[in-house]
Amino acid sequence: MTDFFKGIPQLRYEGSDTTNEFAFRHYNPDEVVGGKRMEDHLRFAVAYWHSFAWPGGDPFGGQTFERPWFGDTVALAKLKADVAFEMFDILQAPFFCFHDADVRPEGADFAENTRNLEEIVDYIGEKMQSSKTRLLWGTANLFSNRRFMAGAATNPDPEVFAWSAATVKTCMDATLKLGGENYVLWGGREGYETLLNTDLGREAEQMGRFLSMVVDYKHKIGFKGAILIEPKPQEPSKHQYDYDVATVYGFLKRFGLENEVKVNIEQGHAILAGHSFEHEIALAASLGIFGSIDMNRNDYQSGWDTDQFPDSVPEMARAYYEILRAGGFTTGGTNFDAKLRRQSLDPEDLILAHAGAMDVCARALKAAHALLEDGALEANRQARYAGWDAPEAQAMLTSDLAALEAKVRAEAINPQPRSGRQERLENLWNRFV
Amino acid sequence: MTDFFKGIPQLRYEGSDTTNEFAFRHYNPDEVVGGKRMEDHLRFAVAYWHSFAWPGGDPFGGQTFERPWFGDTVALAKLKADVAFEMFDILQAPFFCFHDADVRPEGADFAENTRNLEEIVDYIGEKMQSSKTRLLWGTANLFSNRRFMAGAATNPDPEVFAWSAATVKTCMDATLKLGGENYVLWGGREGYETLLNTDLGREAEQMGRFLSMVVDYKHKIGFKGAILIEPKPQEPSKHQYDYDVATVYGFLKRFGLENEVKVNIEQGHAILAGHSFEHEIALAASLGIFGSIDMNRNDYQSGWDTDQFPDSVPEMARAYYEILRAGGFTTGGTNFDAKLRRQSLDPEDLILAHAGAMDVCARALKAAHALLEDGALEANRQARYAGWDAPEAQAMLTSDLAALEAKVRAEAINPQPRSGRQERLENLWNRFV
Amino acid sequence: MTDFFKGIPQLRYEGSDTTNEFAFRHYNPDEVVGGKRMEDHLRFAVAYWHSFAWPGGDPFGGQTFERPWFGDTVALAKLKADVAFEMFDILQAPFFCFHDADVRPEGADFAENTRNLEEIVDYIGEKMQSSKTRLLWGTANLFSNRRFMAGAATNPDPEVFAWSAATVKTCMDATLKLGGENYVLWGGREGYETLLNTDLGREAEQMGRFLSMVVDYKHKIGFKGAILIEPKPQEPSKHQYDYDVATVYGFLKRFGLENEVKVNIEQGHAILAGHSFEHEIALAASLGIFGSIDMNRNDYQSGWDTDQFPDSVPEMARAYYEILRAGGFTTGGTNFDAKLRRQSLDPEDLILAHAGAMDVCARALKAAHALLEDGALEANRQARYAGWDAPEAQAMLTSDLAALEAKVRAEAINPQPRSGRQERLENLWNRFV
Amino acid sequence: MTDFFKGIPQLRYEGSDTTNEFAFRHYNPDEVVGGKRMEDHLRFAVAYWHSFAWPGGDPFGGQTFERPWFGDTVALAKLKADVAFEMFDILQAPFFCFHDADVRPEGADFAENTRNLEEIVDYIGEKMQSSKTRLLWGTANLFSNRRFMAGAATNPDPEVFAWSAATVKTCMDATLKLGGENYVLWGGREGYETLLNTDLGREAEQMGRFLSMVVDYKHKIGFKGAILIEPKPQEPSKHQYDYDVATVYGFLKRFGLENEVKVNIEQGHAILAGHSFEHEIALAASLGIFGSIDMNRNDYQSGWDTDQFPDSVPEMARAYYEILRAGGFTTGGTNFDAKLRRQSLDPEDLILAHAGAMDVCARALKAAHALLEDGALEANRQARYAGWDAPEAQAMLTSDLAALEAKVRAEAINPQPRSGRQERLENLWNRFV
Repeated sequence: MTDFFKGIPQLRYEGSDTTNEFAFRHYNPDEVVGGKRMEDHLRFAVAYWHSFAWPGGDPFGGQTFERPWFGDTVALAKLKADVAFEMFDILQAPFFCFHDADVRPEGADFAENTRNLEEIVDYIGEKMQSSKTRLLWGTANLFSNRRFMAGAATNPDPEVFAWSAATVKTCMDATLKLGGENYVLWGGREGYETLLNTDLGREAEQMGRFLSMVVDYKHKIGFKGAILIEPKPQEPSKHQYDYDVATVYGFLKRFGLENEVKVNIEQGHAILAGHSFEHEIALAASLGIFGSIDMNRNDYQSGWDTDQFPDSVPEMARAYYEILRAGGFTTGGTNFDAKLRRQSLDPEDLILAHAGAMDVCARALKAAHALLEDGALEANRQARYAGWDAPEAQAMLTSDLAALEAKVRAEAINPQPRSGRQERLENLWNRFV
Repeated sequence: MTDFFKGIPQLRYEGSDTTNEFAFRHYNPDEVVGGKRMEDHLRFAVAYWHSFAWPGGDPFGGQTFERPWFGDTVALAKLKADVAFEMFDILQAPFFCFHDADVRPEGADFAENTRNLEEIVDYIGEKMQSSKTRLLWGTANLFSNRRFMAGAATNPDPEVFAWSAATVKTCMDATLKLGGENYVLWGGREGYETLLNTDLGREAEQMGRFLSMVVDYKHKIGFKGAILIEPKPQEPSKHQYDYDVATVYGFLKRFGLENEVKVNIEQGHAILAGHSFEHEIALAASLGIFGSIDMNRNDYQSGWDTDQFPDSVPEMARAYYEILRAGGFTTGGTNFDAKLRRQSLDPEDLILAHAGAMDVCARALKAAHALLEDGALEANRQARYAGWDAPEAQAMLTSDLAALEAKVRAEAINPQPRSGRQERLENLWNRFV
Repeated sequence: MTDFFKGIPQLRYEGSDTTNEFAFRHYNPDEVVGGKRMEDHLRFAVAYWHSFAWPGGDPFGGQTFERPWFGDTVALAKLKADVAFEMFDILQAPFFCFHDADVRPEGADFAENTRNLEEIVDYIGEKMQSSKTRLLWGTANLFSNRRFMAGAATNPDPEVFAWSAATVKTCMDATLKLGGENYVLWGGREGYETLLNTDLGREAEQMGRFLSMVVDYKHKIGFKGAILIEPKPQEPSKHQYDYDVATVYGFLKRFGLENEVKVNIEQGHAILAGHSFEHEIALAASLGIFGSIDMNRNDYQSGWDTDQFPDSVPEMARAYYEILRAGGFTTGGTNFDAKLRRQSLDPEDLILAHAGAMDVCARALKAAHALLEDGALEANRQARYAGWDAPEAQAMLTSDLAALEAKVRAEAINPQPRSGRQERLENLWNRFV
Repeated sequence: MTDFFKGIPQLRYEGSDTTNEFAFRHYNPDEVVGGKRMEDHLRFAVAYWHSFAWPGGDPFGGQTFERPWFGDTVALAKLKADVAFEMFDILQAPFFCFHDADVRPEGADFAENTRNLEEIVDYIGEKMQSSKTRLLWGTANLFSNRRFMAGAATNPDPEVFAWSAATVKTCMDATLKLGGENYVLWGGREGYETLLNTDLGREAEQMGRFLSMVVDYKHKIGFKGAILIEPKPQEPSKHQYDYDVATVYGFLKRFGLENEVKVNIEQGHAILAGHSFEHEIALAASLGIFGSIDMNRNDYQSGWDTDQFPDSVPEMARAYYEILRAGGFTTGGTNFDAKLRRQSLDPEDLILAHAGAMDVCARALKAAHALLEDGALEANRQARYAGWDAPEAQAMLTSDLAALEAKVRAEAINPQPRSGRQERLENLWNRFV
C-alpha cells in the first residue's frame, strides 16, 4: 500500500440522504435497474492518463500537481500503477483504460518503448489478479511525441506510418494480454494545420489502409473485442479527419469497414463538433456503429476540450436514454475521460470527482430507465410517424416522382401541419429527471 | 423596360484604375486566364430569391425593401421577372438560379402552384430567347411554407413526402425546360428541432428513398445536368441531416448514390459547420463529388447565416485555388447566394453589390491561377510527401502490422520531424494574392 | 370568454406525483420558502410578444401559427388582450410584460400609434380591474419597423431620435398608468452592421443623452419603478452597444447613471455574449445594478437567439442561487421571454410550455434556497478568502508596490497553492439540485 | 555571434517583384507614408516569449522545437538573449517586448528571481548599446507558475497578492531601466474557473487596488511610458475579468483610472470576445484609452488562442485604418504576439514568419493610408450623420422626452429610411486594399 490515498476509505453506497462525502449517494452497483445490475449497465472506467499522467498544465501554465510517481523511470511507473489500483479499489471501479504512454516510461527508441510497455503490462497484469477491475480498452498515444506532430497514419513521412503501425501492434498485444474488451483509435494528429501543405487524398488513403491493417490484425490474433474510432472535430489539429460520427461512418463505408469498426463517442468532442452528445449516440445507433462512450463534460462556452467531470443529471439522462433505447452497452462502457481542474490539488479531489460523476451517471441512468419504462415518450414518437405505417404510405417509398405527382393531383393532397409538441415532451422528460 | 434600374448603365470592364462605380475593375469576361475565358471559369449566377423575393426582414424586424413587384399575383411575378432580366443584362450575368417559390405566386393547392409555375416558366423561357443569361440551376423551396415545418422528405406525415416529391418533379421539369445545367436540393427542414420527437432511422430512410427517386427521374426525363445536394449544419432546424460534405458523402455511400449526386458548397454553410470553404471544396474534390458553389460570405462572428456578398480576395482565392486544382467547374458555377444588407435600400445597391462581388472573384481567380501556374506551392506539397513515392513506402500500405513492426525493429526506424513550413507557404501565397 | 383555451382548466398545484399535464407539480404560489411565498420570490411574468404577437416565422419560413386575433385592427387587438388575460388566469400569472407594438395595431403615423396605444391601454387597464395579474414592465418596440433599421437613439437621422424619444414617453406613460413596476429598454438596433458607415463616438453620445432623458422623465412623472437596460451582444445587429452587463456598467458610469439604471438580464443574451447566466447576475449584483431577469433558454449550439422555455433545473438553480444571495428581487421578476417552437401549434402547447417552465423555476428556487440555507457552500467560499480578513492582509490593499516588495523579501513570502475544490463543490451542489 | 541563424542575411527591402524569400517586399522602413516613415508608423516589436521561450507544446503534445538555449540557467538565458538580438538585427526590428519569465531563469524564491532578472536586464541593457532595437514594453508573467493558478492580484491568498505586487515592481524597474515605452498588464489568471468558489466583489476590489498601486508606482519612479491593460475574455481561465475593451473601460471608470491607463488590444483576444479587431480599436479610440496592439491572427474556427502571424492584408488594413483615424500610435506599436506553428521547426521559419507579417502590415498600412487620404469613405460617414450637425438637431440632445413628443406631433415627423450603402462602401474599400 502506498500512502497517497491514506485515510480515504473504500466508497460504499449510503443513499441520497448521507452527508458523508466519501460515499455513493446514488451509485449502487448491485441495484437492479430494468433487469440488470447498475454496475453492468454503466460499466464505469477510470482513465489512466488524466488521473495519473497529467501534470495539471494548460497552454499558459505548467504543472500544478505534485505526484510522487512523476518522472520517467520504470520504478516510478510501477508506483503509479500501485496508486492507480488503489484508486480503482477505493472507487470499486469495474474498468480502467490506458494509452501506452500513460503506463510506461518513454524510451529512446521503439525497442525500448516496447520493452518498457511489456514490463509494465506484466506488472499491471499481476495487479489485476488481485483486483476486480478489468480493462475496458487500450490504445496507443500517437499524438504527444514530436514525431507525430504531422500525423501518425497520415504523416507525410512513411517512417512515421511504420512506427505508428508497429506501436499499435504492441498496444493491441497488450490489450489482448490484459483481457481488454475494446481497442480504441483516436486520431489526435490525423488532420492538418493548413491545407497549403496537405494532400487530403493521400492522407485519407493512408488512414484507410492503416485501419484495415488494424482490423486484420485483430482477427489474426483472435482479439474478440471491438475496434473503436473516437471522433473529434479539431484540437490539437485545426481539422481532424474523424470529425464526428457521420464523418467516421462515411470513412468506414468508403473503406468497407462499417461492419468491423464502431465508435467511441466523447461528450466534449460531440459538443465541439456542434452536436449534442445524445445526437451522436442516437446517430451511431441508427447507423449500427455505436460502441462506447467517453463521459466528460465540455464547458459550452470554452472553445477547447475542457474534459470536466459530468455534473448535470438532465444532460447525462439524455445520453443514457439513447443508450438504453439502443439496447445498452455490449463491449462498451462509460469511461471517465475527465480530468480534475488544475487547481484541484488534493488526493481527495481525485476520489471525489469520480464519486460525484458516478452518482450523476447513476441518477441519469435511473431516470432514463424510468422514462423508457413509462413508455409515454416512445408512444408519442410512434404516434407522430403513425401515418407511415400504412401500406399505402410505405408504397410511396418505392414509388417514383411522376406517380407521386399523379397521386397528389388525384387525391388533392394538401397536408395540414400538426403540433410537434416539443414543450409537452420536455415537461414529460422533467417528470422523470 | 421597367424603370427600376433607370439610369444605371450596363457594366463594362474598365480596369483597376477606374473610379466609375458602375464598371468592372477586375472582371473582364473575355480575358483569357489559363486558356479559358474568365466568364467560362467563373460562371457567375444571380440568385433570384435574395435579389428579388426577399423583403429585408430579420427575426427582429420586418420588410425594409419596397419593390414594385412585391405581392402575390401572376402579373407581379412577371414584373419581377422583367426586372430580374434587366439586372442580368446590366451585370452581363451568364447565369441565374431560382426556386419555384421565388418566381411564381403561391397557390391555394398543388394544382394552382403548378399552373402558376408553368406560366412563369414559359414567361421566363421567352425572356431567355432574347437574353444571353442561362439557367445554372433550379430547385424547389421545400422549407418556407408551414406545411414543411417538420420536414419535406423526412416529414412524419407521408402526405408531405408526396407533396414534396410532386413539387420536385415540377421543378425538375421546369429546370429541364429552361435548359438548366444542374438541379439542387437544399434540405432546409430535413433535420430536427428536438430528438425527443424524432426517429432518426426512419427519416434517413425516407431521405434516401426520396433522393433515389430524384436520380431515377433525372434519367427518365433525360436531364443531363448534375443533381447537387447543398450541405448545411443547422438553421433553420437545430440539426440538419446534410450537415457538411463528409456527412453527405456518407449518406450517398449508404444509399449507393455517390456516383449520381454531387455537392453544391456554400461558403457560409461551410463556416457554420466549423470548416473553411476551401476545406469543403478540397474534400469534395478528393471524394469525387465536387459540383458547384454558392458564393457568399458569412460573418465569422455571427452564428447565423448572414449571406453577405464576398469582399475578401484572399479568402476567395483559397476557394478558387482548390477549384482550379480540381480542374475547374464542369456543370457548376459561382452562384451569388448573397443578399443585400437590409439597410441597402436602393436599386444601385443591388447592382453594385453584385459588381463588387464579381470583381472580388475575378481578382481571386487570377491570383489563384497565377499561383498554380507558378508551381512553387504544388512543388512544395509534393516534396513533403515524396517519401511515399518510393516503392518500399507504397508497399507499406499493403503490408500488415506485424510486418511493419518487424521492419521498424530491423531498420531501427526512428523518424525525425521536418518543418511543415506553414508560414513560408503563407508568404508564398501572399506573393500572389 | 373567448373559446381559444376552451376546455383548459386553471392550473393548480397537485404535487410532484400527479400525472395531470394541466397542473403544477412544483410551483405552489403560497408555499413559503425561506419566509416568503413562492409567488413573491419568483414573480413570474408572461411576455405578450412571444405568446400573442409572434406568428411562428423564422428566417427561412413564414407564419405557422393561426390565431384568430392576427391582423392589424383595434378590434383584433382587443380580442388578443381578451385571450391574453384568459391565459394569465389559467396560469395564475402574477405579472405580464409588453411592448407598445405587441398590444396596439400599427398606425400610419405617430399620432395614430399613440391613439391606438391609449385605447388599448385603457382596455387592458379595465381588464386588470378584474384580474390579479399586474404589469411587471412595459417597453417600446424600437426595432421592428423599418424606420428603426439603423438604430433608434443612435440613428444617423435625428428625426428617428425624436420619434423614438416621443414613443418612449408614451410607453412610460402607459407603464405608469397600468401600475408597472419597471420600465425596460432593449436596444435591438442600437449598434451597427458595419463600422465603415458608423461613428461610434456620436452614437454613444446620442445613446447617453437619450437614457438621461428617460431617467429625467421618470422622475418628472413620479414613476417609482426601476429603469432597466437589457444587454445583448448582437442580433439583430452585428454589434450591439449594450453588449453585456460589464459593458452597460461602463456606459452608465460614463454618463453618471449607475445609480439610476439597473439591468434586466436575459439568459439567452448572456449565453450569446460568452457568459453564463449566473455570471451576469452575480456581476450585476456585485456592481449594484441587478434588476430583473428574462428567463428563457438559448440552445448552446445555435448561434442565434432561440428563446426557448427553460427546461434545466440545475441551470436555473445557479441563477436563483445568485439572485437569493443578492437578496432576491425587489421590483424585478422572472419574465418568460420565451416562445413556443414554431411547430407547437396548439393552444395547449402555449399553456403547457409556461406550466413546465414555472415548475422548473420552482424546483430551482427550492434547491437554491436549500443550498443557501445549508450554508456549506458559502462557508467554503469564505474560508477560501479567510486570509484576507486579517488586518495585515487588508493593509496590503492600501500599501504600495515598494512596501510590498520589502515585505515579500523581509518575510521570505513564498505562497503555496491550495486546492480550489471545484469538483467537491459540484458534488455539494448536486446534493441539493 | 551564435550560429543559430547562420547563413541568413539581414533582410532588406527589395520591392514586390523580388522572389528572394529573405527580403522585404513591402516593408520599407524609410519610405514616407503620409509624412511619417513607415517604421515610425508601424513600430514593430518582436515578442520574446513566443520566439525564444515557447517550446512548441500544445495541450496534446510536448516540445517540438529544439533550441540550444533551452534550459534554466543564467548562461542559457544569455545565449537566448544573444540569439534574440541577432534576430532583431536580421529583421531590423525597432522594438521588442518581454516578460520577466521569458528572459531570466526561474529561481527558488523571490530574491533569486529578482537577482536573475537584474543580471539579465543588465546583459540586455549592454546588448542594446550596440543595437538599434528598443523596448516597446515590459511585463510580468503572473500566470505560468503554479503559485498563480488561482490568480495574482485577485488570488484568495493575500501572499500571492504580495508576491505579485513585488514582482510587478521589479518588472517596472526593469522596464524603466531599459527605456521601455510602455508597461503592460495581462491578467491571464485574473478570473475564475467556477463561480462556486469565487467572490467577484472581493476580487474586483483587489484588482482595482492593485492597479492603483501600479499607477502610483509609475509616477513615483518617474516612468513616462503608458500603463496598458490587455483585455482577453477567457483562456486560460473560464472567465477573465478584463474581458474586452468595454469591460476594461468600466473597470477603469469604477476605480477612477480612466485617464491613467490605456489598453493593449490583441487581435486574437478581440476575436475570442466576439468582436472584430477594428471594433476594439475604434471603441478604445472613442473612449480615449487606445494604447497599443498585439498583432496576431486567431483562427476564426478554433476556439482557443492560436496566436498566428497575420496573413490577411484586408483584415490588417481595417485595423490600421482605425489606428490612423485615431491619429496613429504614440507610445504604442505593433507587437507580434504570434508564435510559429509547432511544426515550423527551422530557424528560417522564425525569420520568414516575421518577415511575411511585416510585409502584410506594411501593405495594410499603405492601403489604409491611401483610403483615408482619398477621403471618400470619411465623406460618406459624415454625410450619413449630417442631419445631426444642424443646431436644431443638436438641441434635441439636451431636450426632454415631453418636448420631443410635442415636436414630433407638431412637425408630424415621420422618418424615412435611407440606404446604409454597406456594399458600396465595401467596394470602395476594395479599391484600396
